[in-house]
Amino acid sequence: MRAYLDHNATTPLRPEAREAMIAAMDVVGNPSSVHAEGRKAKSLLEKARADVASAFGADGADVIFTSSATEAAALAMEGRGFSGSSVEHDAVRAWIENEIPTAADGSVTVDDPAKATLQIANSETGIVQKLPQGLALCDATQAFGKLPIAFNWLGCDMAIVSAHKLGGPKGIGALVVKRGTDVQARLKGGGQEMGRRAGTENIIGAAGFAAAATAAVRDLDAGVWDAVKRLRDLLETTLADAAPDTIFIGKDADRLPNTSCLAVPGWKGETQVMQMDLAGYAISAGSACSSGKVKASAVLTAMGYDATVASSAIRVSLGPENTEEQVLGFANKWLTQLEKYRAKAA
Amino acid sequence: MRAYLDHNATTPLRPEAREAMIAAMDVVGNPSSVHAEGRKAKSLLEKARADVASAFGADGADVIFTSSATEAAALAMEGRGFSGSSVEHDAVRAWIENEIPTAADGSVTVDDPAKATLQIANSETGIVQKLPQGLALCDATQAFGKLPIAFNWLGCDMAIVSAHKLGGPKGIGALVVKRGTDVQARLKGGGQEMGRRAGTENIIGAAGFAAAATAAVRDLDAGVWDAVKRLRDLLETTLADAAPDTIFIGKDADRLPNTSCLAVPGWKGETQVMQMDLAGYAISAGSACSSGKVKASAVLTAMGYDATVASSAIRVSLGPENTEEQVLGFANKWLTQLEKYRAKAA
Repeated sequence: MRAYLDHNATTPLRPEAREAMIAAMDVVGNPSSVHAEGRKAKSLLEKARADVASAFGADGADVIFTSSATEAAALAMEGRGFSGSSVEHDAVRAWIENEIPTAADGSVTVDDPAKATLQIANSETGIVQKLPQGLALCDATQAFGKLPIAFNWLGCDMAIVSAHKLGGPKGIGALVVKRGTDVQARLKGGGQEMGRRAGTENIIGAAGFAAAATAAVRDLDAGVWDAVKRLRDLLETTLADAAPDTIFIGKDADRLPNTSCLAVPGWKGETQVMQMDLAGYAISAGSACSSGKVKASAVLTAMGYDATVASSAIRVSLGPENTEEQVLGFANKWLTQLEKYRAKAA
Repeated sequence: MRAYLDHNATTPLRPEAREAMIAAMDVVGNPSSVHAEGRKAKSLLEKARADVASAFGADGADVIFTSSATEAAALAMEGRGFSGSSVEHDAVRAWIENEIPTAADGSVTVDDPAKATLQIANSETGIVQKLPQGLALCDATQAFGKLPIAFNWLGCDMAIVSAHKLGGPKGIGALVVKRGTDVQARLKGGGQEMGRRAGTENIIGAAGFAAAATAAVRDLDAGVWDAVKRLRDLLETTLADAAPDTIFIGKDADRLPNTSCLAVPGWKGETQVMQMDLAGYAISAGSACSSGKVKASAVLTAMGYDATVASSAIRVSLGPENTEEQVLGFANKWLTQLEKYRAKAA
């Protein structure tokens, strides 16, 4: 039996999302059509929009459905002179025009929030930022569903979210915007999404996103992530006890409850990922979002770690379905490999 | 029992697509992850890509999955000085920089194919264009699955396709490009789609697109659309016999087998759509892609029809599941309403 410990890369589809998507498959119409079939599709889409808004604490804000967090970042940021730090996801960094430095503890201090973007939580380290009031944009992709946040309390104009990080399908995300915020359409043609994103809407995906977000927030409120945090802490304690020189990145910072980023300097992250994969455990080295790209983590580099550490880091990111047996099984296999690595390196 | 006669707006999900999508829901990984779960997702994605290429006669070409035909148009066209005509879909027209005139019969003659876009078939009238060799871009959205075309024989550098017009899900399309054609990414961040379209891929959607395209081409080869054409012709004959002054747009042109665009000058298309909807028939007036937009058809205006005709047109677009009973039922209700309209107008 394999154990999937890479939930920050993507998550298994929640049963609630699956069910909602299968139900949406029966909806025939195009939401832009005025006949009964079209109105039914429109109604499903608007219900999904309201549900995502509600789960994200964004009632009264606009949810613009996109095909990914990547598209939401482009929609929010292109050509707007954004400042941001190197710990942001590549899809956000792609549009950053002015660099904000990152402190050694991973924290980012924003001087001009009205022109800046800042993530709530980092995908690689799990480190959580303190958002300033009046922030133009926050990337909530990793936080939504794992942390008790509400858009209406974040004090941002816009936020990026994604379905597949919280048990929804891949291929749908959203840009959430405070009403009145200027957003210029990048996709043009039809008048969908109130003129801010043309293209026939991903109805099945939206239904899955809404159901997953609703279930994720319900689980969060029920304390599911407290149990995940205990497993994550158990993992770190187990590894630290057996291998005291392991570096746990961001251990003293406020972190996502499910994420452990750790490094044994010199033992390449990519090697570990392959060894653990063969042993039945899916983990990652850095962000999963760039196919074939194996290089030192830009996030760790920004925090001041040298290339040896930054290329030796792995990320274990747990989900609610992981068990103590899986976590201890992983620790056991990892420690065995570490011993072999040390024997070889000696 | 309602009859859905609006297949050019969107189509019911084919059982093959439904099945493939449900199967894809069990795939856990992110295609960019290197572990077994990631590789399995990647493999499903690449299988879908190959199947779409094969169904579209595009073996050896690149299929860049997008979230819609609209996104494919933007990816192909933005900032590239395209010329094109007013009969193109709004998502294509949005990026046209130089206008090509449309003839009264709906045909478009392209002088400089290397800088031009041309649709294969029009969504409103069904009129089919003769594509010149060396065309930069063709919009195959309405043709794919209904006409026996193959990308490798079209002589275009790029083509736009969409899943939901041929029985696949909404929210996925593709830009098909001849290898070596320059395509600049609009979505940046990760290295997905060979660096030409960042963002975690819509795996479930891609699986549905591939299954639908495969089934659509199988049905096309089996002659399914010949039967649809007979129904469409039966509809037009029935209406023409009872209401000889009805204008059938493009009747003498090469047309899609399923599309009838007709007008009784003065009887508003939007009124007819509502009356037919109440009578149990889903049809449309113009393109369905622009929510709430009710105005004279730009396509008919480009063909030289006056505002009265252009605002009086309706589109009936049949699908393989429609029956003679439905078509004759529609004709009967439409003629009844026409009689009422004439009585009122008299």
